[in-house]
Amino acid sequence: MALVYITRKEHFNAAHKLWNEKWSEEKNFEMFGKCANPNWHGHNYTLFVTVKGIPEPETGYFVNLKALSSLIRIKITDPLDHKNLNLDVPFLKNMQSSCENVAIAIWKELVDDIKKIGGDLHCIKLYETENNYVEYFGE
Amino acid sequence: MALVYITRKEHFNAAHKLWNEKWSEEKNFEMFGKCANPNWHGHNYTLFVTVKGIPEPETGYFVNLKALSSLIRIKITDPLDHKNLNLDVPFLKNMQSSCENVAIAIWKELVDDIKKIGGDLHCIKLYETENNYVEYFGE
Amino acid sequence: MALVYITRKEHFNAAHKLWNEKWSEEKNFEMFGKCANPNWHGHNYTLFVTVKGIPEPETGYFVNLKALSSLIRIKITDPLDHKNLNLDVPFLKNMQSSCENVAIAIWKELVDDIKKIGGDLHCIKLYETENNYVEYFGE
Amino acid sequence: MALVYITRKEHFNAAHKLWNEKWSEEKNFEMFGKCANPNWHGHNYTLFVTVKGIPEPETGYFVNLKALSSLIRIKITDPLDHKNLNLDVPFLKNMQSSCENVAIAIWKELVDDIKKIGGDLHCIKLYETENNYVEYFGE
Amino acid sequence: MALVYITRKEHFNAAHKLWNEKWSEEKNFEMFGKCANPNWHGHNYTLFVTVKGIPEPETGYFVNLKALSSLIRIKITDPLDHKNLNLDVPFLKNMQSSCENVAIAIWKELVDDIKKIGGDLHCIKLYETENNYVEYFGE
Amino acid sequence: MALVYITRKEHFNAAHKLWNEKWSEEKNFEMFGKCANPNWHGHNYTLFVTVKGIPEPETGYFVNLKALSSLIRIKITDPLDHKNLNLDVPFLKNMQSSCENVAIAIWKELVDDIKKIGGDLHCIKLYETENNYVEYFGE
Repeated sequence: MALVYITRKEHFNAAHKLWNEKWSEEKNFEMFGKCANPNWHGHNYTLFVTVKGIPEPETGYFVNLKALSSLIRIKITDPLDHKNLNLDVPFLKNMQSSCENVAIAIWKELVDDIKKIGGDLHCIKLYETENNYVEYFGE
Repeated sequence: MALVYITRKEHFNAAHKLWNEKWSEEKNFEMFGKCANPNWHGHNYTLFVTVKGIPEPETGYFVNLKALSSLIRIKITDPLDHKNLNLDVPFLKNMQSSCENVAIAIWKELVDDIKKIGGDLHCIKLYETENNYVEYFGE
Repeated sequence: MALVYITRKEHFNAAHKLWNEKWSEEKNFEMFGKCANPNWHGHNYTLFVTVKGIPEPETGYFVNLKALSSLIRIKITDPLDHKNLNLDVPFLKNMQSSCENVAIAIWKELVDDIKKIGGDLHCIKLYETENNYVEYFGE
Repeated sequence: MALVYITRKEHFNAAHKLWNEKWSEEKNFEMFGKCANPNWHGHNYTLFVTVKGIPEPETGYFVNLKALSSLIRIKITDPLDHKNLNLDVPFLKNMQSSCENVAIAIWKELVDDIKKIGGDLHCIKLYETENNYVEYFGE
Repeated sequence: MALVYITRKEHFNAAHKLWNEKWSEEKNFEMFGKCANPNWHGHNYTLFVTVKGIPEPETGYFVNLKALSSLIRIKITDPLDHKNLNLDVPFLKNMQSSCENVAIAIWKELVDDIKKIGGDLHCIKLYETENNYVEYFGE
Repeated sequence: MALVYITRKEHFNAAHKLWNEKWSEEKNFEMFGKCANPNWHGHNYTLFVTVKGIPEPETGYFVNLKALSSLIRIKITDPLDHKNLNLDVPFLKNMQSSCENVAIAIWKELVDDIKKIGGDLHCIKLYETENNYVEYFGE
């Protein structure tokens, strides 16, 4: 009986901006710098979904990777890929589209469905650029 | 007397869409698929600028990398980073913001100025995603 | 009128061995070392297909990346992925499954069909491991 | 007195398949998809071994990296590299050669010997492809 | 109220050697091998600084990445980049410049200042080469 | 009869500085910036050696990769790894240890011996950092 963690890497490319409607344009630029560009900017996001569980002797795994990949596509990358994170995604409405908030929102979208395919969601890791990434463990 | 090629890697993050104003919405989606999303999408672009020349014995180089990096920043990454390639960039006006066209436009912006710092532009290589890149050699 | 090169990266995972039926077991191990293991070994192959052409003003490209990716999948990665290169692949029969020969064979499979989607095949680059790769330009 | 974690990255290339002898061919393909190809497939596996300990003032380390690398080579990469994981490896007999099970088996092979060179094994991380990896912490 | 971890990646290139003044030359080479070369060797170090905190609704983050990057530059990469770790860096004096010790020293330099910009330092991860890295969590 | 190019990737870690003895300290810092630090700095160099030839039907290759790797180790990485490029390497004496010059010098060291193992040297590609590399084709 051994507890293992399996991670699946996926991608999506999206536009967004950081902008707080309650603030003046001046304050938005002061707080968010070039991320506040009104005409948007964008990223190639890289998403790592880590799931934990105990492998079954008959298969050698606890969650079928194809099922996991398929679930991530349906719930996350189809809704986010080639989209505008501020305008096009129901589960990101009414929040800043910061990498931190997007990672938390992805956790909420996946946590229940991952139980149904046989694992427990352990971590969402989201790269916004090669030099910056966020991790969320559901705490 | 040896001819060497030196390459500098830089980054910019931008929004764009593929859209032809002369076509119907239907035809745009048919031709460009999800790249035609009206609300934009975006990428972390990675740019490789290759310059050729003959190193001088006194320095061991023919182009100062700091000068090259500075030139790329002023002419390319400052105008493109955290911008909308379709709306915000004078030298990309009136063309599709395809990776192919952006690479050609970057070549034109850099080719004369690189001569002034002591090298000859050899190649612009532009990654739009991890899986797709374009090269342009000025031919 | 500008000639650009576009490259698409794809993957396949396969088993193979280097073995010459005309030679003794001893000579096979002498020539191919651990690559001659009779029970096979395998690799995650990474394939880069580079195509050249002149972008059209209306689209900004000369070959639709979706069509290129689809062609590579049908002709190359579907037949090779999760297969044994020595046993399972008709177009690799009767040759050593060296990285060099596989790259040449992939060129032959793709060169005519790439013309049909609007480009000219320029290079097949095939990584067998992170540290070794082969390029073939059709010469 | 500071507890640090040091990680060493190694590689091995191997063939395998997922197959349960108790099941019909049909059920094997249903469960394992293309991973059940009877003629095998293979991967470039990347292995990360993480060891923890308290560095000694005289050397600045607690485990000599050369000794760690040598141990991993003798116990793991020599037995697995250019081998068939289902057929050639005594410590993988009688189990599915899933990435999960291979990671657990590598832990068992290393955990005692790493104590002898001055550290405590903390994690085995095993990449099967660029997009999938497994971690095991001995729990 | 969600606890997230954000990581910033930075770089510095430096010379160093492993050498214990109390030991003979012979013992130094025995213990440190080629790392004891009296004329130094060097590395491209890659540094990952992970900070944890609870994002604020108004901004979507808890620590401004620009402030974090700026702090790392002032406290760590400016003092270390293009320097000799044994000779040029006040906060590395009187210790072995092992990757383990450098990671611990970087933690001590950053831990208090990161509190001032709104986060808690969680981990220093330092790559000395592509194949070796150290992590320190302040324990 | 097909001409293929095979590339082998190797590594070495070394110290160096850029410094012209004929110039004042002031001029050295003006020309070379932080690369002129008298106490040295260093890099993880990544070397790509590309060799061309026509594969033989019996083996599927024209140069044995083990022989190529062995040659590079004896002629290049053993003399350069964990060394000071300005002080320790006979074939780099009396020149600037710029990435350009080191690449040219590596070409000269390898070009004749590669003929003896069955190929023609085509390119030396040398990364000094992740963001800068040099290519030399013997022209």
